[in-house]
Amino acid sequence: MKAYVYVTLKTSVLDPQGQTIQNALRKMGTSSVQGVRQGKFFTLALAPGLTEEAARAEVERIAREVLTNTVIEEFTYRIEA
Amino acid sequence: MKAYVYVTLKTSVLDPQGQTIQNALRKMGTSSVQGVRQGKFFTLALAPGLTEEAARAEVERIAREVLTNTVIEEFTYRIEA
Repeated sequence: MKAYVYVTLKTSVLDPQGQTIQNALRKMGTSSVQGVRQGKFFTLALAPGLTEEAARAEVERIAREVLTNTVIEEFTYRIEA
Repeated sequence: MKAYVYVTLKTSVLDPQGQTIQNALRKMGTSSVQGVRQGKFFTLALAPGLTEEAARAEVERIAREVLTNTVIEEFTYRIEA
């Protein structure tokens, strides 16, 4: 069982890395990209035998307490059997 | 139209960041996580009026040439209307 956690800056927070990438793309002549935001993601390999419900609770706790700075970031996750 | 590009280290490449997170989780008493890998992801806002085919070609080119170090990383992407 695997869990995928996606962490992004809140939309109200400036993203200088994304901005830099967008500027680079523009300099390279790419006009079809109007905005870039960068985030992180984590793949967690979960112990076998965990119920889906237990996995959700555990992943949500880890995402909130360890992987995300909830002041400026938010997360989503999905679990795959 | 939005594109999501996910960049991960190739599985043959060591991931010290992921390892550090896993160690931290273990010290916190979490036994249900057996492995952690960290990656990056990018959200690209694409210009309206781009065909799906053109968007795919463009995003694939940007992912390969700009967002991914193909020596040690690999990418996947998806496009959302």
